[in-house]
Parts: sequence; structure tokens; C-alpha cells
Amino acid sequence: MKGCPVNIAVVAHLDERGLSCCRDGLTDDIVRWRSDGTGSPEWHDSYRDCEIVFGTVPASWLPRLTALRWLQLESTGYEYYQDSALDLDRRGIVVTNLRGQFAEPATETALAGALGLMRGLDILSPAQRERRWQSLEVRPGTTLLARSRALVLGAGAIGGHVRQVLEAFGTRVQSFARSSPLAELHDLTALDAALPDADLIISCLPSTSSTRLLFDQERLSRLSRTAILVNIGRGDLIDEEALAAALEAGDIGGCVLDVTKQEPLPSTSRLWTAPGVVLTQHTGGGHRDELVDKAKYFLANLERWRTGSALIGQVDWSQGI
Amino acid sequence: MKGCPVNIAVVAHLDERGLSCCRDGLTDDIVRWRSDGTGSPEWHDSYRDCEIVFGTVPASWLPRLTALRWLQLESTGYEYYQDSALDLDRRGIVVTNLRGQFAEPATETALAGALGLMRGLDILSPAQRERRWQSLEVRPGTTLLARSRALVLGAGAIGGHVRQVLEAFGTRVQSFARSSPLAELHDLTALDAALPDADLIISCLPSTSSTRLLFDQERLSRLSRTAILVNIGRGDLIDEEALAAALEAGDIGGCVLDVTKQEPLPSTSRLWTAPGVVLTQHTGGGHRDELVDKAKYFLANLERWRTGSALIGQVDWSQGI
Repeated sequence: MKGCPVNIAVVAHLDERGLSCCRDGLTDDIVRWRSDGTGSPEWHDSYRDCEIVFGTVPASWLPRLTALRWLQLESTGYEYYQDSALDLDRRGIVVTNLRGQFAEPATETALAGALGLMRGLDILSPAQRERRWQSLEVRPGTTLLARSRALVLGAGAIGGHVRQVLEAFGTRVQSFARSSPLAELHDLTALDAALPDADLIISCLPSTSSTRLLFDQERLSRLSRTAILVNIGRGDLIDEEALAAALEAGDIGGCVLDVTKQEPLPSTSRLWTAPGVVLTQHTGGGHRDELVDKAKYFLANLERWRTGSALIGQVDWSQGI
Repeated sequence: MKGCPVNIAVVAHLDERGLSCCRDGLTDDIVRWRSDGTGSPEWHDSYRDCEIVFGTVPASWLPRLTALRWLQLESTGYEYYQDSALDLDRRGIVVTNLRGQFAEPATETALAGALGLMRGLDILSPAQRERRWQSLEVRPGTTLLARSRALVLGAGAIGGHVRQVLEAFGTRVQSFARSSPLAELHDLTALDAALPDADLIISCLPSTSSTRLLFDQERLSRLSRTAILVNIGRGDLIDEEALAAALEAGDIGGCVLDVTKQEPLPSTSRLWTAPGVVLTQHTGGGHRDELVDKAKYFLANLERWRTGSALIGQVDWSQGI
């Protein structure tokens, strides 16, 4: 099939470099580009003929994409399509995500936030603005990854990389994942038993019916008073009101939230100001070359599509966490 | 010699837990404790009889410590005694430092600072105070350790641990050390050739005649406009005026300074406010159990002293960097 022009819709959010990369790889195809570069994708009648869509389009489009055979998402998460999964399967539509593309940036943001809290940068940074020397006050309160016990929730690409980095620091790590052989903890009973001894809990869990509000008030109450909770997975994992209350009461040491239930975080949220909160505002998956990389990932998969090879990152709808 | 009481001065800066640990280990000895728990150590005539001193005492005391046979420092640095080295050797006095005790905390503070700058926390943190959602502005500018080239200056315990952690992140690392077989770069010509391509430079160098002002205006000018310079070694490494000027001009991306030429940093220093500066205020060596650990290190060495074993951390005065 190599060389045959294909009907492709490029709806993904790309910058100039990402678009240029796509353009260079799609010279022989019939391409529908998204109408605007930055806002929400809009429905085009011309998308109807497209066999291939690159972009995390609204699930409501799927019934109208009658020629669709392959949907390449621009995210790792695919929870938006869970309700359409049966229909996608029946129609023989393959969905691929960006598996593995966020492991490094998400890990680095998680560690930036956690280390910032552990090494006292949350106190040193405001002190610097006021030219205050706070060395003697901060130094005895700092803690170490090297002497910490961490729980990593999720054992996919992100959870695996987080674990590898933590172990290089000397952290004692246990992983939680229902079915992965790489994890030590496979059910909630085991997780709940491990939570009180964890200095650091890093969640890389996707959004599924079994992860939503996993950290409700009851489970949050199992954390130690010095524990740091990091969420680089999905924002619906945590009961945010209960978390804010626990932080304000000093029942939890701190948290690093890359994701929140609603984004942008509403200005009324107590998480903006609760003590020990680091909000990384869903920047955790990003880096300078993110959008070029997404374009390259799609083009590499397209090459596999043209040659009949199995696509990278095929979504398995039966997978939980 | 086990069990023989020894004349010991404990002048080290210790907290209640560290002192208590020392007291428990020195029940059979004749111990002179420092007169005040927190300020500068003061000269006592009673120190004159002490065979062993635990603490980084002023070099000016050394001629008066006529019974001294072993000095256990409470630091890794020993540059204060460089001028007395010949005399110490002649008198047969062994000096031991806390080699290896700072590798983990210093590495973690270096990474906290560098990752904070790379992952945009220096912008996200003030945005959070003002409840501003800056995700779209910050995300495309973030960078990754996984795609960075780093130079680690020094290949001792700290430099070795820094390198191990960076490699777990996927960073390409080269080390600079004059004589270590673990380093790729052994002289200034090689260092200068590597500087322009480095995204991250982490110095763990001690203060010696060959490291003082190693980063003068000329060498700083070799760094790229996005480079981040981290100093967890000694404060006299860098020409601070030249560094502030380079940061203000945008000629360097940022810096993380755990040490400065003068500490506390004078309130008139431009480094308090220059863009991209993270001041960790010499907290990098610390952690919650630091002072207990120092007491334990001394007591373990004391046990070796009593049984005639070689002491851990003996200073080799001939060593440069």
C-alpha cells in the first residue's frame, strides 16, 4: 500500500514546527487540516471521508466519521471514548494513544515538585524574594528521597520510569497495579495496608471507573502527617475538598498536582492556597519538542499503517488500571 | 585499646538528638563539651589535653591543641586547614572528614533546583500565589533532563551520586576531574571545549587554589544561553558579579547556588534578584537526621581508633580536585 494517497484529518493541536513536520510527511495524501491552530477542533463535513484522524476529537464526532478506520490520539488518556468503545470495536476502528511519550516529562515534573517540598524550596523561594537568609531554619527540616518509602500507583510507561528514577535516588519503592507482574501490590487491601508507611505516593493512574475518587476522605486519612501525594495521572482520582481540608489541618505533609478535576482550576478552589500544595497546572506532559514529537509519532505509525504492520499504542478497551 | 578512657573534645555543632547519641557512646571517656550549643565554638584551656577533637574548630586553635592526635571534622570541606597541613603532618595528627555523608542531600537539592527551573516551577509558583492558570504559556518552554547533556565537575562521593541519578533520568553525562579514572575530562582545555554544549553544569568541586574563581567571566561566557549552572561545592568557585551580569543579560539560562562566596549572602548581592537564580542557602547538605548521623559517623570512627583500625575519611593533603 506504500505510496497510496490516504484521506487524513489532522486535527491535533500542533505548533508551527509540528505542522511543518506533518506537512513534510503527508505530501502525497489528501489532508484536511484543522481550521484553527489553537482553539477547540471544529466539525468539518470534509472530515467525513477521512480514513485516518490524528487528534483527540470530541467523542460526539465518532458517529459522523463514517469512513474512519484509525484514530491516532494526541494523548495517553483515552477515557473520553470509553462509552464509544463497543461501537468503535464493532466498526473495526483502531484507536492508538501516545503510549510512552509522557513518561519522561511527567516523571521529571513529579520529581521537581516532590523534591522542591522535601528540600525546602517552598520556604527558600519566598525567603529569597524578601532577601531573608533562612538556612538554619530550613536545613534541619529537609527530608531525603534516599531515605523515603514511595508507592508508585500504575506500572505502565510513566509508573515504570518514575520507579527507575526513584530507585537511583535510593528510595524504597513499591508499585500498585491490578494486573502488572512488575507491581508488588495488586488490590486495594494491599494498597491500604501500605499507605500509612509511605513518605511519597505518586499516582500515574488513568481515569477509569475503579480509579475515580480512589483517594476519597477515608483513603486520604490513611496517609501519614508528613506524606507527600503526587498526582500526574488524572484529576478525578482525588476528592479535592477532602485533600484541601487534610492539608489545612496538617494531616498530610503536601501534594503535587499536575492534574485537577476541573482545568483551569477554578479560582474558588482551596487548593490554590492550602499549605504544601504545588500546582504544576497540567504542564507535566510537556517539553520543548513535545508537538514535533507527536507529529513524528503519528508519521511513524502512518508508515506502519501503509505497510500493514501493527500500530504502536493500540488501545485495549478491556484494560483497567 | 578497647575500653581505655580517652580525652575527647566534642565541639561539633549538634542538636539534642546528636548530643544524646554522643553521650551514650562516650560514657567511659573524659569528655569536654562545647560551652554553647549553637554559636561559634570557643577556646577552652581544657581542650589542650584532648587527644581527639570532634568538630571543625578554627585553624587558629591547632597550635594550642598540643595533645591532639585525631581531628574529626563535621564537614566534607577541609580547606580551612590547608595552611596548617604541613604542621599537622609533622605532628602526626590524623584529620578525617565526613566523606560521603553529603552525597544524597546535596544531589537531591541540586536536582530540586535544576528540575524546578527546567519544569517551569519558577513561573508556576508565583502564578499559583496569584491564582493564575499559566499552563499554555509554561508547557512549551519546559525542558527535560532526559534530553540534556550534563557536565558534573568532581568525581568524588557527591559527583558520583549526582551522575548516577542523572543517568537514571536519561541525561548524557560527562564528568570533569583532574585525576579520577571515572571522569572523561581531565584538564581545563577539555572542560572548556565541552562547556558550550552543556545544558546543565553541576559543580561538586572543593575549594582549592585551582578551583577558586574557576568560573570567571571568561569561562562563564562559554556557557550557552539556556545553560543552568549548579554549585553544590564551594562558594569561591564563581565570580558572582560576572554571574549576576550574565543572568541579567540573558547570556545564561539560570543557576542553582547552594553556596556563595559570603554566607549569609549580603543583602546587597544582585544574586537575590537576578532572573533564574535559585538560592538554596547552604541547606543542600542537610536532612532531618543529619546531626545524629554525624555523631554516629564519629562514634564509628572512634571505635576504629580504639581498635587500631584505619579511620574512615582520612584527608589526603596532596589531593587537588
